Amino acid sequence: MIAATPLLPTPSTPFQDSSSCWLNPETTTSLRGRFVAVDGEGPITERLRIEAALAGAQCVKPAHAEILLVRADRAGEELAGLVDGLGPEGFAVHSAGGRTTVVAAGEPGLLYGWFYLLRTPDWNTPIRDEPALPVRMMNHWDNLDAGDHLGSIERGYAGGSLFFHNGQVTSDLRRITDYARLLASTGVNALTLNNVNVHSNAVPLLDELLPGVARIADVLRGFAITTYLSVNFASPILAGDLDTADPADPAVAAWWAAAAQRVNTWVPDFGGFLVKAGSEGQPGPHDYGRNHAEGANLLARALAEHGGRVYWRCFVYNHRQDWRDRRTDRARAAYDEFQGLDGQFDDNVILQVKCGPMDFQVREPVSPLLLAMPRTNVVVEVQITQEYTGHQIDLCYLPPQWSELFQFPTTQGSRPEDTLVRSLLGVCGVSNVGDDLNWTGHDLAQANLHGFGRLAWNPAAKVDDLAREWGRLTFPDAGVQDTVVDLLLQSWSTYERYTAPLGVGWMVTPHTHYGPAVDGYEYSRWGTYHFADRAGVGVDRTVATGSGFAGQFPPAWAEVYEDVARCPDELLLFFHHVPYTHRLHSGTTVIQHIYDTHADGVEEVTAMRERWLKLRGSVEESLWQRVSDRFRWQLVNAQEWRDQVNTYFLRKSGIADVKSRVYL
Amino acid sequence: MIAATPLLPTPSTPFQDSSSCWLNPETTTSLRGRFVAVDGEGPITERLRIEAALAGAQCVKPAHAEILLVRADRAGEELAGLVDGLGPEGFAVHSAGGRTTVVAAGEPGLLYGWFYLLRTPDWNTPIRDEPALPVRMMNHWDNLDAGDHLGSIERGYAGGSLFFHNGQVTSDLRRITDYARLLASTGVNALTLNNVNVHSNAVPLLDELLPGVARIADVLRGFAITTYLSVNFASPILAGDLDTADPADPAVAAWWAAAAQRVNTWVPDFGGFLVKAGSEGQPGPHDYGRNHAEGANLLARALAEHGGRVYWRCFVYNHRQDWRDRRTDRARAAYDEFQGLDGQFDDNVILQVKCGPMDFQVREPVSPLLLAMPRTNVVVEVQITQEYTGHQIDLCYLPPQWSELFQFPTTQGSRPEDTLVRSLLGVCGVSNVGDDLNWTGHDLAQANLHGFGRLAWNPAAKVDDLAREWGRLTFPDAGVQDTVVDLLLQSWSTYERYTAPLGVGWMVTPHTHYGPAVDGYEYSRWGTYHFADRAGVGVDRTVATGSGFAGQFPPAWAEVYEDVARCPDELLLFFHHVPYTHRLHSGTTVIQHIYDTHADGVEEVTAMRERWLKLRGSVEESLWQRVSDRFRWQLVNAQEWRDQVNTYFLRKSGIADVKSRVYL
Repeated sequence: MIAATPLLPTPSTPFQDSSSCWLNPETTTSLRGRFVAVDGEGPITERLRIEAALAGAQCVKPAHAEILLVRADRAGEELAGLVDGLGPEGFAVHSAGGRTTVVAAGEPGLLYGWFYLLRTPDWNTPIRDEPALPVRMMNHWDNLDAGDHLGSIERGYAGGSLFFHNGQVTSDLRRITDYARLLASTGVNALTLNNVNVHSNAVPLLDELLPGVARIADVLRGFAITTYLSVNFASPILAGDLDTADPADPAVAAWWAAAAQRVNTWVPDFGGFLVKAGSEGQPGPHDYGRNHAEGANLLARALAEHGGRVYWRCFVYNHRQDWRDRRTDRARAAYDEFQGLDGQFDDNVILQVKCGPMDFQVREPVSPLLLAMPRTNVVVEVQITQEYTGHQIDLCYLPPQWSELFQFPTTQGSRPEDTLVRSLLGVCGVSNVGDDLNWTGHDLAQANLHGFGRLAWNPAAKVDDLAREWGRLTFPDAGVQDTVVDLLLQSWSTYERYTAPLGVGWMVTPHTHYGPAVDGYEYSRWGTYHFADRAGVGVDRTVATGSGFAGQFPPAWAEVYEDVARCPDELLLFFHHVPYTHRLHSGTTVIQHIYDTHADGVEEVTAMRERWLKLRGSVEESLWQRVSDRFRWQLVNAQEWRDQVNTYFLRKSGIADVKSRVYL
Repeated sequence: MIAATPLLPTPSTPFQDSSSCWLNPETTTSLRGRFVAVDGEGPITERLRIEAALAGAQCVKPAHAEILLVRADRAGEELAGLVDGLGPEGFAVHSAGGRTTVVAAGEPGLLYGWFYLLRTPDWNTPIRDEPALPVRMMNHWDNLDAGDHLGSIERGYAGGSLFFHNGQVTSDLRRITDYARLLASTGVNALTLNNVNVHSNAVPLLDELLPGVARIADVLRGFAITTYLSVNFASPILAGDLDTADPADPAVAAWWAAAAQRVNTWVPDFGGFLVKAGSEGQPGPHDYGRNHAEGANLLARALAEHGGRVYWRCFVYNHRQDWRDRRTDRARAAYDEFQGLDGQFDDNVILQVKCGPMDFQVREPVSPLLLAMPRTNVVVEVQITQEYTGHQIDLCYLPPQWSELFQFPTTQGSRPEDTLVRSLLGVCGVSNVGDDLNWTGHDLAQANLHGFGRLAWNPAAKVDDLAREWGRLTFPDAGVQDTVVDLLLQSWSTYERYTAPLGVGWMVTPHTHYGPAVDGYEYSRWGTYHFADRAGVGVDRTVATGSGFAGQFPPAWAEVYEDVARCPDELLLFFHHVPYTHRLHSGTTVIQHIYDTHADGVEEVTAMRERWLKLRGSVEESLWQRVSDRFRWQLVNAQEWRDQVNTYFLRKSGIADVKSRVYL
């Protein structure tokens, strides 16, 4: 046996108290005592040596390695050939003669290959892999201070920020390191640190808080994650330097150039800016009579010389709408605002478009803007944090929703290869992570974090396989795996059943967005209505008689959505106002569908809870207890949804449930 | 002319920047240069000498006085005879031979006589006056800290607390002095300093914060106002001294005895405790299996030897009700909880009963508990702060509501002298005052503060006269007086028209309680429902088919409320669930009444606003602007109420407005 040559001192152990999630040492491939070499130099390479040591492997010289990680440019011709044709993030795994080799075009591929080894028991099948999408970004809505609007993390349900505390950048990098490891293991390669609603106390991130940003970027760099910052369009004003943020003002351009220079001094590989401008009260180019292209290009030009990018969010609508105004339709807003600007954005501008035209409801159509910008870089934004899908109290596994999005047949099936994901540069997900020791509040919501990265890597992946992978890596017990996979895979559908019906959305408690309030947003300024009256319910978004939103889709889809007879059931009330007696494709009426699905949803939660409760003893006790508590709360929530929604529509329609269920 | 002999040094001027309200030097009787003597000694007497000096009077010896204030026991027999038969707070005014004499049985009467002189131009008509009710108390819901639940003042709409700041008792007594002067001028004679929801940081008011309490009590004493504190029933636990608050535990009794002793050491004439126990989550005797009498008597016995009293609030109900539970009726709660305890309370316990059975809605029936406790001291609680009546943004003059309450014919008119007020020991009002320079946010809401004290003094007063008095004392201009009196007198009725109809209440935005949300409390845990469905609306509280609440009234009233044909229109939906087509005594249907009153309410606000706007130049400009701003906001609010309520009921009933008004 060859003596191991330690190349590194014994590393400090990672933060012990937090969950290792799907990097569970009991379920991942054991590398303890294996001889590992990571060839070459660079921040990721160095990090991989630490990772190997943390995994209990013996770091040795390449010649002695059972497991060798090597870049193509340092490998022999034969090995290098394994990655021919792969992009800069691709890798190949090849086992022969008692040695397993990971070859990659660049350092990131070595990292992804490493995590491939960790999650894969059998290394003998040769594989080649690379991400389908170059942009796989995590967005954090982390505030600088817990006293900021909506607390430490806007719409966060898993504790405080990992990055900020009391207005400062945290100096404790242990959990950030563990978090970066989790992200990298799924393939996430970019991250914004701070909330898109950039409050004034976050403006110093471009200046005196940069040393802290640089500390975090140093950690992320080792995991092939590029650091981005959210910026306020009015930063030159908020910083106290100028009295305008007008894109046409040379002083403004100079201010942004200086800011970009400053950030790049601290973070040489800085990714760029994420911008929420002219949205929900945030300042934007319209304040100066400029359009979004002029605004985005302003920042893009400041970043260009440093290789930086601007992610410009398209979540722009009139958030002070009059509910009496039936002509305005919030669903139209992003398309109306941006479609005409296609082709006017600089190459390093990327439009970030929410997956649906409204705001992360449990069911929405695909945003038509995603299909309408052929000459513009576009990424789609999804929400991993469960703002409208149960606050990480209710179980709601979201990869099935994202998979449907990615696989959306843009030509309505006429060319099966035309899926939405083909027109995208990538995907951004709003993180569901906080400083809770289990990261995500609900332990099973870790599966959403895992699923986001893995689906971003391979949007064609089957969600069943992703759920299964997560379950296998997280729980040692095969019976537990079977149960949690079942629970995950039915959870989105169940959540949809007991909440707002048939795609109409928004029947939630105002402000918190948890729990039912059927009329909670009905007479509000937010453009979020269901228009239920004694005869029917739903929003007429047809071209013929409604807001015309259906016409924003390519013709093949516009025809489907326009036609009440062809519109898919699950989106019926998003596109049409119909009588309660309208018969669905499923054969039942709208009103009976409401009654049935809400009753079914509660029964499903009851059954899900019972299945979970039976796992006591097969999973760690405190985890079992946390999840059990959440299922209890979810059941109460589901009952409340059922009872309020069904009572509301019984009172309003006067049509009895054929099954005679009455909740009041 | 006799030379004046100044008895006091020139006093410091009062806090100059705040409004003098109805003690406006331009409108009150001028005492500048008049020779005034306040005979005798005592804190009120001393304070009156300061008041005289502040008014510009010359303080002289009694023999030289044009205006003499003297107690009966120091006056001659003839003068003393003027107050024969009057109680300790009564006074008489007699003018003869160029001298006006105020005679009083005690010091408080001198004070009330002084303010009588200030507000009365003609002193020649002899008068005798005394308060009808011995208890005329102001309740402050002031928190110790602005960070407490709901801010510095719970349900306060006029700035921060006058008494507390940053968890401490304020040391600036200037505005407290001015506030006490305003209260005393209306006859208020008692005051609780702190919120009935006693948070843990208010528990030290019984201990280390007592020096501050004593400072305030010293000020109030000069204005004949007795100081009370709200206490938490679990104080022995919260103070960290005991692990129980059980009334039957001798250690608990000893703790309260020590606390009462401590308070009386600092405030020798301390009034006692106000207690919200077993209410909305506050601890109470039920936590230990004791009833309210046992709880109240515990505190009463601690206070008895010091002459102190316990005000025990009866605002007790299940605040975690299930909206599906149609058998529970919050309106029944106070009566059900307390009526059976009549006669079990110690003599120095006073039950404090909210005016209506729910919670300060714009319209409710009288609380039947007020009519059901013949062997118990009872005071009624009204809300001067406009929690449910427009947040001091909307104008809502409340003395008409309180007058109706006081004059409620308990025997349904069979004996005209039987009015509710005859069974009361007094009235407590929740203050509408904060540290805004105009005290009440809306300048015209000063009239509510004035009207509360004046009506508590004389519940038989005509509200027109009270409004007129306030207008005359506040505004020098006669035209302004006419306008503001008109505005005040119609404002309650107008507010009622554009908000929740026919006594049903609760169609308000949850939590804030401003603005409409028809279903805002419909599916909540608060016991606050209207049960609108497509056929009708209202709460069946009859004995025959409903909750039985109507049966809590004496028979004469129970019969009226029970009978849908006899029930007064304005309370119809409080007592009955009726079809939208039900015809009111007014001749119109319920649904048309809703449409009409809401439309009328907006028109009335429009007209009120126009009348106010015309006063520009006749009132101080900044005051005109503040009130103008509020009328603009009120109009928006009224329109929103009209449009949401009428749209809601149109959608639900399907019955068109006969006047074809449609808001959507």
